[in-house]
Amino acid sequence: MTDFHIGRLTVIGVGLIGGSLALALRDAGVVDDIVGAGRSIENLETALELEIVDRYCLDPVEAVQGADLVFLSTPVQTFGTLAGQLLPAMKPGSILTDGGSVKGDVIRQIEPLLPPGIAFVPGHPIAGTENSGATAAFSSLYRDKRCILTPTPSTPAAALETVRRMWQVAGSEVVVMGVEKHDRILAAISHLPHMIAYTLVNAVGSYDRFEENILEYSAGGFRDFTRIASSDPTMWRDIALTNREALLEMMERYESFLAELKEDIRSGEGQKLYDFFLKSKLLRDAIL
Amino acid sequence: MTDFHIGRLTVIGVGLIGGSLALALRDAGVVDDIVGAGRSIENLETALELEIVDRYCLDPVEAVQGADLVFLSTPVQTFGTLAGQLLPAMKPGSILTDGGSVKGDVIRQIEPLLPPGIAFVPGHPIAGTENSGATAAFSSLYRDKRCILTPTPSTPAAALETVRRMWQVAGSEVVVMGVEKHDRILAAISHLPHMIAYTLVNAVGSYDRFEENILEYSAGGFRDFTRIASSDPTMWRDIALTNREALLEMMERYESFLAELKEDIRSGEGQKLYDFFLKSKLLRDAIL
Repeated sequence: MTDFHIGRLTVIGVGLIGGSLALALRDAGVVDDIVGAGRSIENLETALELEIVDRYCLDPVEAVQGADLVFLSTPVQTFGTLAGQLLPAMKPGSILTDGGSVKGDVIRQIEPLLPPGIAFVPGHPIAGTENSGATAAFSSLYRDKRCILTPTPSTPAAALETVRRMWQVAGSEVVVMGVEKHDRILAAISHLPHMIAYTLVNAVGSYDRFEENILEYSAGGFRDFTRIASSDPTMWRDIALTNREALLEMMERYESFLAELKEDIRSGEGQKLYDFFLKSKLLRDAIL
Repeated sequence: MTDFHIGRLTVIGVGLIGGSLALALRDAGVVDDIVGAGRSIENLETALELEIVDRYCLDPVEAVQGADLVFLSTPVQTFGTLAGQLLPAMKPGSILTDGGSVKGDVIRQIEPLLPPGIAFVPGHPIAGTENSGATAAFSSLYRDKRCILTPTPSTPAAALETVRRMWQVAGSEVVVMGVEKHDRILAAISHLPHMIAYTLVNAVGSYDRFEENILEYSAGGFRDFTRIASSDPTMWRDIALTNREALLEMMERYESFLAELKEDIRSGEGQKLYDFFLKSKLLRDAIL
């Protein structure tokens, strides 16, 4: 790993995800030059002050010129438009990679636009906090976290290896898997829980039988459980739409389990309820 | 509040809930004598060592003799049997109260057994941690928490006032409400979230399409979200069965919201999804 090196890294979207990658690579001393791009000049100024980037451009096309590796960390719905602008400006032999939460849709957006000589390595670091923007970035975000890479048949092996080593340098364990597997796993462990949390808060918060907001009675448990319902609505609208098929499969699976639990409660099946709760507890305790 | 005083307090079930109440009242100097009872001699010995109780009895009937106030903090399914044994041994003018998570069922179990001259004040402190047993008890558990009391038409006003002041001395804000309202609010903010968490872990943990446990990929968000799925299966079987009607109402309400969300995802209703997530975020942020 000691010979790993990037000349110029360009980060499009210098927030928690992109900024933390930049900081991790800078701290490891493996990158010469980091250029940032984004829509908010205030955020880019902050990124410069925090030494996340060496310089920035408001124009992403200008930002990618001369870059050896370009990291896309804007909302996934912007990837198609951005890729259409950036790819023609990238230098031959350079690599485009990303940190989007959904991979099938991102590949469908970007792959048809790829010019010869530019490699695309779809990726997704499984890490984050509730905070956003350059001020939220920190160099250890990816340490001991997993990063999933989902190469396509057209991804060159050398480019995959470069991106794998980049994430290893940032502290992550890299897992390579098929795009469909990624999208179904994320639907299950991340997208479904967000749908559940949003739904729970709406269902309980709009219950008006007692002419007062019953959420006022919620104690710490409810607050912890629904923390993810405070997530950004735009981001989650995009994820729900771009990973639709896998998410609907998981929602239906979950609904059928819930319907069975409801029937066991209705018919007073004490032993079945105990077994169901115990099985869940054992599964949950195993991932503590 | 300075004139509030209990001669002898008996706590049946000296765990987190009962032990913490004993410690809070002892610290406040408002109780002369605290007697514990329970099934586990080891736990009662611990409670004695930790000075939660002054003495203990393995026989709950013996434990309540001479008590001015008896606090039931065993699992709610045991209340009927225990009340049948204890009530005839309690002294005239004394008060029975409890800390059970469900109130309608508890009242149905206890009220028909009440002898003349003994008051019953159904209660539920909205506080807790994931730990249990006397070692988990601490005197500030109830500080700045709510305690709901659900008196019935036969609850004497003086007894209600005594129990109200007891919880205020322990640091809680006391709310008096009808039993049905209590059970529906708790179904919404506590029982439904537990059912959801248990179901999510089972639905995801048993997904076997990829021949590996996809829970292995879960990051911090999923672990936080499913923490309550590690709760005690016996306790939750009992709650699901004893608060069945209110819980089923809430589960059905939640299911209908989830079905609508699923249809909006399926038909690609971006604006509706955004509005739904935003509404939830605003409701959630308001209870931070």
